[in-house]
Amino acid sequence: MSIEIEQTDRTRLKRLPKRGQYDRETINSILDEAFICHVGFVVDGQPYVIPTGFARIGDDLYIHGSAASRMVRHVAKGIDVCVTVTLLDGLVMARSAFHHSMNYRSVVILGKAELVENPKEKNNALEALTEHFVPGRWNDVRWPTELELKATTVLKLPITEASAKIRTGDPVDDDEDYAMDVWAGVLPLNITAGEPIADAKLQSGIDVPQNVANYSRNGKR
Amino acid sequence: MSIEIEQTDRTRLKRLPKRGQYDRETINSILDEAFICHVGFVVDGQPYVIPTGFARIGDDLYIHGSAASRMVRHVAKGIDVCVTVTLLDGLVMARSAFHHSMNYRSVVILGKAELVENPKEKNNALEALTEHFVPGRWNDVRWPTELELKATTVLKLPITEASAKIRTGDPVDDDEDYAMDVWAGVLPLNITAGEPIADAKLQSGIDVPQNVANYSRNGKR
Repeated sequence: MSIEIEQTDRTRLKRLPKRGQYDRETINSILDEAFICHVGFVVDGQPYVIPTGFARIGDDLYIHGSAASRMVRHVAKGIDVCVTVTLLDGLVMARSAFHHSMNYRSVVILGKAELVENPKEKNNALEALTEHFVPGRWNDVRWPTELELKATTVLKLPITEASAKIRTGDPVDDDEDYAMDVWAGVLPLNITAGEPIADAKLQSGIDVPQNVANYSRNGKR
Repeated sequence: MSIEIEQTDRTRLKRLPKRGQYDRETINSILDEAFICHVGFVVDGQPYVIPTGFARIGDDLYIHGSAASRMVRHVAKGIDVCVTVTLLDGLVMARSAFHHSMNYRSVVILGKAELVENPKEKNNALEALTEHFVPGRWNDVRWPTELELKATTVLKLPITEASAKIRTGDPVDDDEDYAMDVWAGVLPLNITAGEPIADAKLQSGIDVPQNVANYSRNGKR
């Protein structure tokens, strides 16, 4: 059974409604596959859009950053934000320039973030942020000290006003163009991991761990 | 000789100034490699961040969309926007959770977009948008009709107030952590093209063109 997020005037897709999705399962799967989000916020009327890592725990999205970061300082005030996550899946090549498109899956979340001050929730969020990045990594590394926790601001954005937008499949051309002698179709795009590059200062005798050596995202490598 | 873009209070990197770059060559190379940008704009105090394709011609960035799109309608009014382009180059794994990071190259452009009404400039922008996507594609496809041109809004954002932010290289750990028995390094990430998928309605006997079959971006495939 899928749980639908209530649509609002601000999240409902009006122009291409069939591309809109509002169930949590779809939204979560997009969030969990992506590495970064783009955080939009307004300062003195000027919008800013800043890329950053993130993680999801249940129905909340967490971001973090230095307490000195401008983005973090402003968003921590509880101002209106928009967090957008985009996965680019392919280039859609039609017979006409006009009908070229992209296959993608995106999520837009509107709301206000709140500062995470509870030390246990803050630690859990940092664990989720590390695990989102490379599953299994948290148990391999040194955990944050109290000083590091203090230097890190963690922000929580409830995923309550949100929508996903998805385009998949073939190009859609005008009827009369299908007879054209032009190749049309989709060029799939994937984010793939290359060969791990050891830190120049790595102690000798330390092997690349399996979760890095065999890294895959959504079954892709 | 590199041409520097003048820094403003809004684009100057304050917290990690060594990551900031303001020369056009660097900014242009990031813009030209990326497929999509994220456009930030404000409606009734609420920021929105929408992913979309784009292209660069000289010192201008072009985006386009249906005249009915909310993003396009609002941005066409000449309101303040922020266009951000992000390339994710790798996951940076340190010995401590705290020093995990990402290697990336991003560009932030602030300004106001203007509607492109001159038919020749509009056509040139659509050509650039198609070519940015798949170089060589414009000459293979049916060009926009007058009706299609009317249904498409093209917007131009001058790249005058802009900065790039770049992180490269190894993790940076605390001195005392380098002795830890933990693998550290970078897992490179690339966007790669898979095998082209022909449109189900493709006429028989049409081969995949070379610019699609051998597609590469920044020398990667």
